[in-house]
Amino acid sequence: MNHLLADLRVVEFSAFVAAPLGGMTMAQFGADVIRVDPLGGGIDHNRWPVTDSGASLYWAGLNKAKRSVALALDKPEGRALAKAIATAPGPGGGIVLTNLPPLPGLDYASLKAAREDVIMLRLIGNRDGSAAVDYTVNAASGFPLVTGTGGAPVNNVLPAWDVATGLYLTTALLAAERHRARTGAGQEVVAALADVMLAMVGHLGYIGDVQINRRSRPPLGNDLYGSFGRDFATADERRVMVIALTPRQWRALGRATGLGEALAAIGPRLAVDLDTEAGRFAARDAIAAVIAPWCAARTLAEIAAAFAGSGVLWGPFQDFATLVDRDPRCSTANPLFAEIDQPGIGRYLAPGLPLDFSAAPREPTRPAPRLGEHTEAVLGEVLGLSAAEIARLHDAQIIGDLSRR
Amino acid sequence: MNHLLADLRVVEFSAFVAAPLGGMTMAQFGADVIRVDPLGGGIDHNRWPVTDSGASLYWAGLNKAKRSVALALDKPEGRALAKAIATAPGPGGGIVLTNLPPLPGLDYASLKAAREDVIMLRLIGNRDGSAAVDYTVNAASGFPLVTGTGGAPVNNVLPAWDVATGLYLTTALLAAERHRARTGAGQEVVAALADVMLAMVGHLGYIGDVQINRRSRPPLGNDLYGSFGRDFATADERRVMVIALTPRQWRALGRATGLGEALAAIGPRLAVDLDTEAGRFAARDAIAAVIAPWCAARTLAEIAAAFAGSGVLWGPFQDFATLVDRDPRCSTANPLFAEIDQPGIGRYLAPGLPLDFSAAPREPTRPAPRLGEHTEAVLGEVLGLSAAEIARLHDAQIIGDLSRR
Repeated sequence: MNHLLADLRVVEFSAFVAAPLGGMTMAQFGADVIRVDPLGGGIDHNRWPVTDSGASLYWAGLNKAKRSVALALDKPEGRALAKAIATAPGPGGGIVLTNLPPLPGLDYASLKAAREDVIMLRLIGNRDGSAAVDYTVNAASGFPLVTGTGGAPVNNVLPAWDVATGLYLTTALLAAERHRARTGAGQEVVAALADVMLAMVGHLGYIGDVQINRRSRPPLGNDLYGSFGRDFATADERRVMVIALTPRQWRALGRATGLGEALAAIGPRLAVDLDTEAGRFAARDAIAAVIAPWCAARTLAEIAAAFAGSGVLWGPFQDFATLVDRDPRCSTANPLFAEIDQPGIGRYLAPGLPLDFSAAPREPTRPAPRLGEHTEAVLGEVLGLSAAEIARLHDAQIIGDLSRR
Repeated sequence: MNHLLADLRVVEFSAFVAAPLGGMTMAQFGADVIRVDPLGGGIDHNRWPVTDSGASLYWAGLNKAKRSVALALDKPEGRALAKAIATAPGPGGGIVLTNLPPLPGLDYASLKAAREDVIMLRLIGNRDGSAAVDYTVNAASGFPLVTGTGGAPVNNVLPAWDVATGLYLTTALLAAERHRARTGAGQEVVAALADVMLAMVGHLGYIGDVQINRRSRPPLGNDLYGSFGRDFATADERRVMVIALTPRQWRALGRATGLGEALAAIGPRLAVDLDTEAGRFAARDAIAAVIAPWCAARTLAEIAAAFAGSGVLWGPFQDFATLVDRDPRCSTANPLFAEIDQPGIGRYLAPGLPLDFSAAPREPTRPAPRLGEHTEAVLGEVLGLSAAEIARLHDAQIIGDLSRR
């Protein structure tokens, strides 16, 4: 965390990954991000992974450093409070982030009527309003059919479209807020998850490959497309990814393995120029045939020793447990991380922003709130409600603050 | 494209995906993004996919709407020009984006000496300065070992870590520029690609899964983790992803298939509550056994007709060719897209920003520049060099503008 955006307030009506990640990114920049949920929690409140007691590690992970307000959003009075928080005055307020269908009175026009310069960032599935989630967008993207070795589609486990969309939303939020600071004008910003996928397929050249070349890349297992890179088995049943994108990396691979001559002989034999990426791609099976026995004769530790400081571009495959338990990058030795006490879950390692700002010192991230933890504080601070008014809302079951239970 | 950030100038020293995507995103917001390359082009100038004549669709895709300056960066005078462009005066200038090791005189301290309030965004591999690319970071992430059905690791084809990092960089750029506009202070911002991966593994709950639960999710093929979602074969050899995240989607699936009773019977039989995500996950094989024959007996078109307007969350898998040729979302019917004439490549569909701003009308995106296309224009406009000075730089082989060839 840092305090670069501490003067902003973002009110979030959200669930799942993209919008919560966007809001959390703002919170880790110091913004006051208020996630407003229905009294029992949003539809993502119990998403997996969960602890043995059912607490969602996923929810905790995507809502760190926010404040939580829980309101009876099924009642007009609950929605009126949500609207008042979303449109409360102040130069840094009036910013709403959502990926849920708008509730009555919480659509852009209604919010704008309450605060002329409101900024609303709204994530939808498809541009026509139909539903789409990371899984369906990914299925349509073309990527699953070229992942793995071909035949059946293979889904991403990382929800990459949600992640990208969450970060487009933070970029869009800052662009819209910059515009408002300069002109006074708010606006509605709409992003469709499917459009993020379509844009990226185009940016990476795959639309051109079809329209210009009338072809598309085949499934290649773990090989790189258009250069050399492949995974190899080690003597101790690990696997390593070995890559040569640049001529320098290619020469380093020959030097570090002592296989430079055998590798160089491939070029004349196959009549390809191994100093080019296309040449190494064309010769990839021959290259791999030279590298594979070298890797298979060595343990991961021996390979790491041979490649250390060599300029070879490589890395081991590891599972989540190895990453968390044994990779020093995944520890408090990395300033990215802090140990947090997450209510209902326990003490564990939480990442902050993966960005270091020289003019904004890094501070430890804060845990996610308990559901409704800040309802009373927000109603008091942001809306100026008295203790008596808050007590009445509690008795009327419009608010449900855990601290009162 | 729009013009929301048209007052900013970003000078980019970059290659491959993350930094070029970040710069292009700024360019599609209207910023003047000047990519500075060595005379022969950067190390990504010929990356695949390429056309039959070798022109890179990848480079064209990731550098749209930028200006291109080519300089002899191996010579002091070339680097001095690059530095002058990067630190030229003006409130929107002095913003540098790079993912390359800094050339002499182009490090943050040197740039800051030339322009006190310079903002430099610098992407590195690992925080300790060692090399890491999307492929090695992904191998370390844990995801490849839970992608597919287990055993061998399966790499992402989408460079998801690069994509996320590019969009973190745009967010960081706007946060740092906002800080400079308010305080006058520039800064250096450093992002490590590995940290983006580590942050996301944590945000999504997988660090907590290991540290709190002492377990981690297994490979599940194309099944969702912790809810119901799986791919099914159709009668016409297509595959569809069918998902039920919410109780409403679950009930819709029963109604639309006419299998509601058979599905409901699973709950009591397996003693699970199918109204919860965890219950549907536990019963996923039994649910799939009911759905699979229904899908196998129908063509994709029949399934689409049965699910239309039903509230079922689903989508077909399709390859790149089908996406590009037959999905109406991937056409100029979608305002995301425009046909562009890309020099050296031809006419094809190019995506703009996947964001619609109500206060900033969408404009068609511009093609990528030819290498060095804007060298003379930038030297004239930004540095105020005369035609005679530019001619001398050309004769001294410090610049190489295609328009002169």
